[in-house]
Amino acid sequence: MRYHRIPDETIRRLPIYLRGLLFSSEQGRESISSRDLADFVGVNSWQIRKDFSYFGGFGTRGIGYNTEKLVKQIKRILKLDVVKKAALVGVGNLGSAVLAYPGFRMYGFNIAVAFDISPMKIGRKINNIVVENVSSLWTLKKRGISLAIVAVPQHAAQKTAEALVKAGVKGILNFSPCYIAVPKKVKVITIDIAMDLARLPYYIPAG
Amino acid sequence: MRYHRIPDETIRRLPIYLRGLLFSSEQGRESISSRDLADFVGVNSWQIRKDFSYFGGFGTRGIGYNTEKLVKQIKRILKLDVVKKAALVGVGNLGSAVLAYPGFRMYGFNIAVAFDISPMKIGRKINNIVVENVSSLWTLKKRGISLAIVAVPQHAAQKTAEALVKAGVKGILNFSPCYIAVPKKVKVITIDIAMDLARLPYYIPAG
Repeated sequence: MRYHRIPDETIRRLPIYLRGLLFSSEQGRESISSRDLADFVGVNSWQIRKDFSYFGGFGTRGIGYNTEKLVKQIKRILKLDVVKKAALVGVGNLGSAVLAYPGFRMYGFNIAVAFDISPMKIGRKINNIVVENVSSLWTLKKRGISLAIVAVPQHAAQKTAEALVKAGVKGILNFSPCYIAVPKKVKVITIDIAMDLARLPYYIPAG
Repeated sequence: MRYHRIPDETIRRLPIYLRGLLFSSEQGRESISSRDLADFVGVNSWQIRKDFSYFGGFGTRGIGYNTEKLVKQIKRILKLDVVKKAALVGVGNLGSAVLAYPGFRMYGFNIAVAFDISPMKIGRKINNIVVENVSSLWTLKKRGISLAIVAVPQHAAQKTAEALVKAGVKGILNFSPCYIAVPKKVKVITIDIAMDLARLPYYIPAG
């Protein structure tokens, strides 16, 4: 199947649907209508039907979508069907929150290694991960880890990204509050934890 | 101007553009082309032009968009043109990261008050905010705070949301890894800090 025909905007929404489907599945639901999924994840039902149609995800009239089948399909498209190792760089407040966050496992990620520059943190065990010296970032290549989460202070973000690229990392989830420049072959997704708050006032009536 | 005609998906992207424009403005750029903005924020340039056309944001051929004007316009649409107070509930790792994060101020938010349930945290000063007992959440109404950020453990999220709604909160940014149910008049945006990692493998070539 030619998954590469799926628009980026649809790819952006697939994890949202996946999350909704996984929660719905946990509640014991075998199927879900596009309308119920819409209420659950906050995306219009016509948008959901259109997005699913890109990869032949068709519901059954009156019953809806088979939850388990759809979860499998979305995981396959997003290449989440095999557990992936990821490295974390920066074990401050945000990095520690990342280590403790249950969501990564839900999407098939295993944060297998963590790095920091502070002697206060190196050697400490956080959520069963021993924090390593950031100077050994280069070992990621031989450990077969090609995904990294960056949660370092702004001034260290670019340098960290460059070290990760040198270590063969192909994908970076950047939590530092700045853009980072990398070669084209490396994909960076920058998260701004404040950005979604910026959408809230729009939806709130004045007064 | 009838801003309510702007599609939700465009509203979702406006903060992304705003961030790109603010960064570009910090670099001293007075104008930016849709193509440069596209490279910067990772959204297609045709999508940017289409989104801006909803509110009459038209660029000048060969020059691009006036950065300052566009920032003002987007802030007005998102109702970010007046500094807004927000409350934080839960001062664990993630909550502390939220308090320290510079991005909220960039979007016009002032995290003016923080709450926690732990006696170890109540009374402590974090980033110039004295942590208050969560039992005084109800005071938000008289303090005129109608936005809240929830960063409590999963099991406490629903109860926290209900207390916030009782306290007159109209918008909630939820960092807890679960959906929360609130009356229709209250807008909740749930952030999953792991979700964006789920998009990365799709963009990474195998091997």
